[in-house]
Amino acid sequence: MTTRVMNFNAGPSALPLPALERAQRELLDFSGTGMSVMEQSHRGKDYEAVHDEAIALLRELLVVPASHEVIFLQGGATQQFAQVPMNFLPRGALADYVVNGVWGEKALAEAGVVARDIGASVQVAANTGVGEHPVSYVRAPSQEELVLDSGATYAHFTSNETIHGIQFAEFPDFGGVPVVCDMSSDILSRRIDVNRFDFIYAGAQKNIGPSGVVVGIVRKDFVARGRKDIPKIFQYRAFVEANSLLNTPSTFGIYLVRNVLAWIKELGGVEVIEARNREKARLLYAAIDANPTFYRCPVEPKSRSLMNVVFRLPTEVLEDKLVREAKAKGMVGIKGHRSVGGIRVSLYNAVEPAWVRALTSFMEEFARTNA
Amino acid sequence: MTTRVMNFNAGPSALPLPALERAQRELLDFSGTGMSVMEQSHRGKDYEAVHDEAIALLRELLVVPASHEVIFLQGGATQQFAQVPMNFLPRGALADYVVNGVWGEKALAEAGVVARDIGASVQVAANTGVGEHPVSYVRAPSQEELVLDSGATYAHFTSNETIHGIQFAEFPDFGGVPVVCDMSSDILSRRIDVNRFDFIYAGAQKNIGPSGVVVGIVRKDFVARGRKDIPKIFQYRAFVEANSLLNTPSTFGIYLVRNVLAWIKELGGVEVIEARNREKARLLYAAIDANPTFYRCPVEPKSRSLMNVVFRLPTEVLEDKLVREAKAKGMVGIKGHRSVGGIRVSLYNAVEPAWVRALTSFMEEFARTNA
Repeated sequence: MTTRVMNFNAGPSALPLPALERAQRELLDFSGTGMSVMEQSHRGKDYEAVHDEAIALLRELLVVPASHEVIFLQGGATQQFAQVPMNFLPRGALADYVVNGVWGEKALAEAGVVARDIGASVQVAANTGVGEHPVSYVRAPSQEELVLDSGATYAHFTSNETIHGIQFAEFPDFGGVPVVCDMSSDILSRRIDVNRFDFIYAGAQKNIGPSGVVVGIVRKDFVARGRKDIPKIFQYRAFVEANSLLNTPSTFGIYLVRNVLAWIKELGGVEVIEARNREKARLLYAAIDANPTFYRCPVEPKSRSLMNVVFRLPTEVLEDKLVREAKAKGMVGIKGHRSVGGIRVSLYNAVEPAWVRALTSFMEEFARTNA
Repeated sequence: MTTRVMNFNAGPSALPLPALERAQRELLDFSGTGMSVMEQSHRGKDYEAVHDEAIALLRELLVVPASHEVIFLQGGATQQFAQVPMNFLPRGALADYVVNGVWGEKALAEAGVVARDIGASVQVAANTGVGEHPVSYVRAPSQEELVLDSGATYAHFTSNETIHGIQFAEFPDFGGVPVVCDMSSDILSRRIDVNRFDFIYAGAQKNIGPSGVVVGIVRKDFVARGRKDIPKIFQYRAFVEANSLLNTPSTFGIYLVRNVLAWIKELGGVEVIEARNREKARLLYAAIDANPTFYRCPVEPKSRSLMNVVFRLPTEVLEDKLVREAKAKGMVGIKGHRSVGGIRVSLYNAVEPAWVRALTSFMEEFARTNA
């Protein structure tokens, strides 16, 4: 008998049990083919059915309009930090970057390397970082703070910052400039208007599936304007044209994405998931705010992430003790990122509301005992 | 009860049953952690143990010397077609490419795009293609044919060509020029002297594991000389320095690679696998050569691949019939690549000798019945 833990990992992270059980059942014999899905040709009809179903489910769940395509990429969001400017920043052009955390910093840095090489430039439209070594972030920028260039070929932002626990409650308005968004850590966690975006990319390993798969949701005419003089394997256009079968994709990864998406649909879709996620976050922030002398969330209330809840205790010794005692009760993955310390609880889609209730009960008791 | 087929797919392809069974057993609870390996943090000790074991097994099985490192990449071999020149072709420099099939053509084309951008150049050291639309290949070039430039920063070749069934029986001698090899389809199928190579890369989905993982075996001082002015995510150096944890790798893919490597070790290592592979290929080529009026392998005998055996029948109608009747007997994946037609039987490590005996018996009977 398997004892599963309550997994609050920041990514790779918990996957829905039904999606894993389905994978387990079919691992040696997928769909009556006498082989695993990972032993199928990526050009065979059995794999392609899974591939196309994953795309169709993403379209359905996120209400992707006909103007946009869904693609599967590799290399993680980190590779897209370089590949986005390679595609969309022509010689001499300009892109705007909003920085509200470590991932925005990294995206900006890689874009800077690409831009330097071709006489293009990258501008910081906003940076909410404070202090140095390390820079700290406690909020997303407001609309008024953004210094935007109407001549930019695109504007880039990170919808949710996993390390500092910061999320845009409302997406910024970039005027008429095409919008590129790293949505790795909150895609499918809430309803979005896809039409407001020209290029969404998301590493799968938080809300969609295992690591090694990146989902892209791209406006067709935006992608078609991308540079054609870079290696073909880096042209997003080529992935659109080849239905993401330009070369061999991570077939088993995409199969698991399909299983996760089918689970979301079964549960009632993104609207239901969003309500579930808002309730989980409400419970946890309430437990923090109920003991303000013991727990402290450094993030400004309007920027608090629904996905990654970060907080501190009075001392690091108490933080370590909390992590240790939670683990003994089957609650794991709540240690803060090695670069910032503290506690971080990730509440991605697959995290069950019951786990959050167990955690908040424990936190109340822990505060009572250790305050 | 699972009925597994005899899977001769060209890639993704058959995986060893014990490696899959192990993954199935552990899918919901890996190593007593109460979660799947794909739900673990890539920076946690449970995943890192798997990651490091995969690297250690590759080192042991291929007798990798201390001068070399093993790394894990993403994007398939196709991405390396671009990334290799991005790393190793400085402005104004020159690289030599040996072309003996479609994969060599593709590697050359992407290198050409990279070179054009920086005033570097790519030379064809040999091209054994004949005819046009499509070009056909029936052999690897001989040592004497190679036109090498001693000033090249590297020479690139493909050790085994999956589509046309061509393999280098002996590796070329490139003098003192650093050697880069796409070994996607025959790595771990035979013993090699790693010291003769500066950069080996291999998509995992033939002999090593599922798609979505690329294995690199790299000479440390060669990689250290790579360009530092390209995006960090494309610098092989950064993967060496970060033990391939620069960003989130395909953790489940690497876990499966570990399982496959453990199976190879259990079987007796690469020497035993090589003997097994040579015997499988001997059996199949013997069945072809025994019926020369019915079966015809277009590849020159000294270039015949041990991994991908291609042959033709008198008519396409008979080829379709062979594929159909083989499938009815549980032998699948033998249809030739869509670009060349005919029959292709892939004999990667996980293909059992008994399957080849079943296939050759069937081929003898089929020739008798249909000649």
